[in-house]
Amino acid sequence: MKPIDAVIVGGGVIGSAIAYYMSARGIKVVLLDRDRVGSQASNAAAGMLAAQAEITEAGPMFDLALASRTLFPQLSTDLKELTGIDIGLKRRGLLRVAMSDVDVTDIQCTLDFQKKAGEQAEWLSMEQVRHKEPSISSEIRGAMLIEEDSQVDAPELCSAFAQAAAVLGAQIKEFTEVKSLLLAEGRVTGVITSEGTIRADQVIIASGTWSGSLLTQAGLTCPIYPVKGECFSVLSHAPLVQSTIFSHGCYLVPKKGGRLVVGATTTSHSYDRKVTLGGIGNLLDASKQLLPCIVDAEWERAWSGLRPQTLDGLPYLGEHPYWKGLYVAAGHYRNGILLSPMTGKIVADWAEGKIDKNISLDSYRVDRHENVHFEKEGVPS
Amino acid sequence: MKPIDAVIVGGGVIGSAIAYYMSARGIKVVLLDRDRVGSQASNAAAGMLAAQAEITEAGPMFDLALASRTLFPQLSTDLKELTGIDIGLKRRGLLRVAMSDVDVTDIQCTLDFQKKAGEQAEWLSMEQVRHKEPSISSEIRGAMLIEEDSQVDAPELCSAFAQAAAVLGAQIKEFTEVKSLLLAEGRVTGVITSEGTIRADQVIIASGTWSGSLLTQAGLTCPIYPVKGECFSVLSHAPLVQSTIFSHGCYLVPKKGGRLVVGATTTSHSYDRKVTLGGIGNLLDASKQLLPCIVDAEWERAWSGLRPQTLDGLPYLGEHPYWKGLYVAAGHYRNGILLSPMTGKIVADWAEGKIDKNISLDSYRVDRHENVHFEKEGVPS
Amino acid sequence: MKPIDAVIVGGGVIGSAIAYYMSARGIKVVLLDRDRVGSQASNAAAGMLAAQAEITEAGPMFDLALASRTLFPQLSTDLKELTGIDIGLKRRGLLRVAMSDVDVTDIQCTLDFQKKAGEQAEWLSMEQVRHKEPSISSEIRGAMLIEEDSQVDAPELCSAFAQAAAVLGAQIKEFTEVKSLLLAEGRVTGVITSEGTIRADQVIIASGTWSGSLLTQAGLTCPIYPVKGECFSVLSHAPLVQSTIFSHGCYLVPKKGGRLVVGATTTSHSYDRKVTLGGIGNLLDASKQLLPCIVDAEWERAWSGLRPQTLDGLPYLGEHPYWKGLYVAAGHYRNGILLSPMTGKIVADWAEGKIDKNISLDSYRVDRHENVHFEKEGVPS
Amino acid sequence: MKPIDAVIVGGGVIGSAIAYYMSARGIKVVLLDRDRVGSQASNAAAGMLAAQAEITEAGPMFDLALASRTLFPQLSTDLKELTGIDIGLKRRGLLRVAMSDVDVTDIQCTLDFQKKAGEQAEWLSMEQVRHKEPSISSEIRGAMLIEEDSQVDAPELCSAFAQAAAVLGAQIKEFTEVKSLLLAEGRVTGVITSEGTIRADQVIIASGTWSGSLLTQAGLTCPIYPVKGECFSVLSHAPLVQSTIFSHGCYLVPKKGGRLVVGATTTSHSYDRKVTLGGIGNLLDASKQLLPCIVDAEWERAWSGLRPQTLDGLPYLGEHPYWKGLYVAAGHYRNGILLSPMTGKIVADWAEGKIDKNISLDSYRVDRHENVHFEKEGVPS
Repeated sequence: MKPIDAVIVGGGVIGSAIAYYMSARGIKVVLLDRDRVGSQASNAAAGMLAAQAEITEAGPMFDLALASRTLFPQLSTDLKELTGIDIGLKRRGLLRVAMSDVDVTDIQCTLDFQKKAGEQAEWLSMEQVRHKEPSISSEIRGAMLIEEDSQVDAPELCSAFAQAAAVLGAQIKEFTEVKSLLLAEGRVTGVITSEGTIRADQVIIASGTWSGSLLTQAGLTCPIYPVKGECFSVLSHAPLVQSTIFSHGCYLVPKKGGRLVVGATTTSHSYDRKVTLGGIGNLLDASKQLLPCIVDAEWERAWSGLRPQTLDGLPYLGEHPYWKGLYVAAGHYRNGILLSPMTGKIVADWAEGKIDKNISLDSYRVDRHENVHFEKEGVPS
Repeated sequence: MKPIDAVIVGGGVIGSAIAYYMSARGIKVVLLDRDRVGSQASNAAAGMLAAQAEITEAGPMFDLALASRTLFPQLSTDLKELTGIDIGLKRRGLLRVAMSDVDVTDIQCTLDFQKKAGEQAEWLSMEQVRHKEPSISSEIRGAMLIEEDSQVDAPELCSAFAQAAAVLGAQIKEFTEVKSLLLAEGRVTGVITSEGTIRADQVIIASGTWSGSLLTQAGLTCPIYPVKGECFSVLSHAPLVQSTIFSHGCYLVPKKGGRLVVGATTTSHSYDRKVTLGGIGNLLDASKQLLPCIVDAEWERAWSGLRPQTLDGLPYLGEHPYWKGLYVAAGHYRNGILLSPMTGKIVADWAEGKIDKNISLDSYRVDRHENVHFEKEGVPS
Repeated sequence: MKPIDAVIVGGGVIGSAIAYYMSARGIKVVLLDRDRVGSQASNAAAGMLAAQAEITEAGPMFDLALASRTLFPQLSTDLKELTGIDIGLKRRGLLRVAMSDVDVTDIQCTLDFQKKAGEQAEWLSMEQVRHKEPSISSEIRGAMLIEEDSQVDAPELCSAFAQAAAVLGAQIKEFTEVKSLLLAEGRVTGVITSEGTIRADQVIIASGTWSGSLLTQAGLTCPIYPVKGECFSVLSHAPLVQSTIFSHGCYLVPKKGGRLVVGATTTSHSYDRKVTLGGIGNLLDASKQLLPCIVDAEWERAWSGLRPQTLDGLPYLGEHPYWKGLYVAAGHYRNGILLSPMTGKIVADWAEGKIDKNISLDSYRVDRHENVHFEKEGVPS
Repeated sequence: MKPIDAVIVGGGVIGSAIAYYMSARGIKVVLLDRDRVGSQASNAAAGMLAAQAEITEAGPMFDLALASRTLFPQLSTDLKELTGIDIGLKRRGLLRVAMSDVDVTDIQCTLDFQKKAGEQAEWLSMEQVRHKEPSISSEIRGAMLIEEDSQVDAPELCSAFAQAAAVLGAQIKEFTEVKSLLLAEGRVTGVITSEGTIRADQVIIASGTWSGSLLTQAGLTCPIYPVKGECFSVLSHAPLVQSTIFSHGCYLVPKKGGRLVVGATTTSHSYDRKVTLGGIGNLLDASKQLLPCIVDAEWERAWSGLRPQTLDGLPYLGEHPYWKGLYVAAGHYRNGILLSPMTGKIVADWAEGKIDKNISLDSYRVDRHENVHFEKEGVPS
């Protein structure tokens, strides 16, 4: 059997995307997860591709988000062909709704930036919003419409990435925990797992909020902390809304089959994934304010996930400054779904020694939060 | 094989209790359900044995409820012995909580009646309630404590009745729908089902809110309509309360394993069993008022059931006035769990030709809502 | 509100397809189900569109099956557009596998007929089969390849039909049981349901194996009996086979996401839907013979459904000979998924007074199993 | 708040039992689990208390098993009182069945030892077995009956231990992963977890097959490896058997409510918890041989768990030879349920500085598999 070229640690949407893009280029990868692929945050996400909805200034995240969003239409076709899975790409636009004067001002600011940046964005009055979405509350003050902010079904996306990788030859090893990295002579040479040692010249750490111990072993200070998000879903025969509705601490994402996902709370710094009654209550109150008729919809279920957050809100994307072949792609917070194709592509480029000049990744460097001195002998001090 | 003595139509808690009590006396019964045993209201009930909590006057229901409640301790032992199932009988009392002056007056009235009737009941001040249940809101005005109003796990009770009947020789036929009654010469002689004809000298209609078409076929006007009740449950490691807490439109029933059941809404006249977001919202708000710390508990799940209600709130219990051997035991509304043992015992008495003189069943007659004239030839007009 | 034009009784794939095709033509329909839409056989089907695999002679079923199969590609696009649901249409062909000399002879006979009928079908040697599907057992004797016998995801199809109908204006009323038909002056005028009376000039009975009591009320003798089919599914990261594999008493249908459905047993004349251990055992043994490596796949789950079978194996499709406006579309046995689009189209044609001359429906007449004499006064005798 | 006395790492049945026994003595403990309490092997166990069924010689395991078995009756009462949970203790005996001459010889050997050891055990002929259990196959050669080898419901036991501990004041922290031990000056002083540092003078490692990295950190060589066991369950209204039936690679454990658990396969050295089709097939074939009528029972579900096995088959029970206050209680293989009360009691004794002289624990020492030299400064080399 051909030896392994790369080990990907973490089977969330980021790791799975990397496995897919690398496999598509003929790189022999193994994708490891300590539980099942897609069993954590990726499975809990609402799947908004909200590249524009909240960004008010130019910067690396804006570029990366836009670049990644453009990859979805082709990706959707490719993954369907390879796996039969439809990722549910839905391009019916996003309404960022204003509930107060302050909201109107904030949204206007975002709108101005988006237009200056050359992106589509449009202000709708309450009446225009209700013409488009008749069920929305007449208490709203208006909304910004972003036609291009589409959405996908997050669990399907993650699953399709992993399946497509498998079809293309990747090995997927679930219930396999990485205990430590093999590091020698300035290179990574593999990993030690609960199922034995795997040797490879490239190792990609993509374990989201669980990346900590391997990063520490590699001498990196990349603090990633969990931010729990609780969601619930309701069902109706005909959809209650067509667009994604986005407001303070609450968004409504219409899915296929009459499902409407309501998200999401934010609770930082704990790995506790329990959905609380209070969390549901807060979302319920907020969603009723936006869409009064939601109270008549059928309850489906509640769930939660842990978003991997960083100190500056940007993911860590890059090669280790000392240990060659060791890459990090983690800390995507609530943008993991949106950024997954671009992240996968970038890591696959690295693996092939290519660099995409169009995208500056300097802001994402893995050593940006430390002042590491690498002594001779190469041991991080 | 010994021929069937009796056919019981409906495998809810009432039909299952009847099957158990009849089987225990050596009567050969078959218990039919169009779906699975215990798949409807009995499985959704919170299981309160609230014989005293709401009754303010003497009457047939009060007597029946008290008589049935006293059967539970022995029943619990017997069912455990036969089936291994623990029905979760818990005797930690019920607090009927006053939230307003009007509540205080109402509860005082119930309290007075209970004492006159010789039953235990006691007023506790807010401080006394909080001494007993420290997590309860300090906004309450006090509560009536009823030590004897215990509770059971409703799904386990229904399942244990049916299993115990099976162990004692009853046949249980699920997915078997009764199409019509066989009636001839003033007697019931069996039923026609989706799986064929079953002949028996006794047929007991115990199908709750689905009893209508057979009752109609028998010429009876016993209107039973569905009243949907929605519930949800939360979990905590240590129980939030010890007692059952009972108030306006909301009760909190502590179950084994740190589960707390919150019930129940009331929506009449539809068979739609969907749990609505609005129903959950109402219960959530009411439960927070009683027990503020409930918001920190873990969400478990939501469900609903259809209580079989009658025009006067009393079940139909009795033999058909014309067709001998045809019995009705249906329409127990939200007292089915509480009344199930006594109902089972009464029907088993009838089957043996016995009459318990201590309990007057006149108020429960099946022909109380009509003025039926039975002509010669015996056809109900 | 616009009055109802048509009532469709039964929310399986047939009723849902009818609701969709009628709604698409602007007909105002209400779709009724006593439980939930798609909760019975349609949800249990493996979704093969096996129009050719077993048919050895020309006849009405062959024509109808081929005509229906051609509707799927466009249908798939339309339903995705309306509901976002992907019905999983997969066109990777079907292999009908020979395990013995007798099989070879039987399959050759089918093959000859298919070729004579001008349809694609091809014999593959064991080596050719294994070239196409390397995991298949080397014990097989060869197989007939039918490229056009594709498949869909049955639950998604049924759900998409119903949702699309709702989007197009149909009312969907679940938990609504039809008690009786309203028949007067040679016409159907509506139905009496558990939720009240609904008046309409057209009523379509599409309740599969539960159609009996309404058919009886209408004076028809259309015996439809249940045939339970048990299935299970397994999972793997990369698909074990690409084609549908079809043999004696066992078929393997590869689904998206690495799922492989193994079906199906046949147990006649009972409504019992329980999956038995013996049923699973039989399928397990048969599937191992076809695909030895299946033992390493991950167990997912088992389920069952009740196929509605008729005496001559053909569905009942037609208008009542006496009661105008009363249509029957039931008894599709294991061809309900395949025949659903054509059935929906045909019923919608009838509702509009059109007749598709290309398809003869005489063999499907609802009164073919009786010799009904309609007396003056028009009461079926 | 009172400071923590002891940290228990791992919320399986062993850790939960320790938490219960320590809490019952007023020791302030915190019980940690990286997922949920009881989410692994303890939840998958069939719950046999088979102290005698397989043991053929005197030794430490025999003594410990018998001592632990005697604790269950009182434990059952205590846990019910504290938590309302019934652990399903069922004392209907165990039949170890012989299928061949070799089996007869083996069982006779066990029987002889049991009698010599003064324990009850009895040989039954095939006819006697079938008199007791009429459904058992007539192909069997006889069986050893052990009246005292009872059983419990494993998930309920684990849950009841943890709940009872919580009621008695223990803190239960789920989703909390222990990253490392705090060791200083010859003592354990606490743990570093994913949720922060917890200081305590006693730390008990009870993480079953996941204990490895902490043991390694403590300088211990206590190899514990996973052995996957797959099971399934079937349902019937009346129980198919009363006794536990035990044979080669297959046991049948009757549970309350007509459930029969069939276990268990053994697959060593992988953390993969997937249930394979082949695993089910093997159990199915073996169970059919013992109990032919099982094929008619209803399929319920399949599951698996990872038993923590050691090189000599004995658990590690003891204090660390160097780091005072650090205890290990792990590696109970398939005897965790049976040994849990005695293990909990022993660790609670240690925590109080008591030693039960009746039980020799020398065979269970944590340093029995190494020849550790503790250098000056006490760092394990």
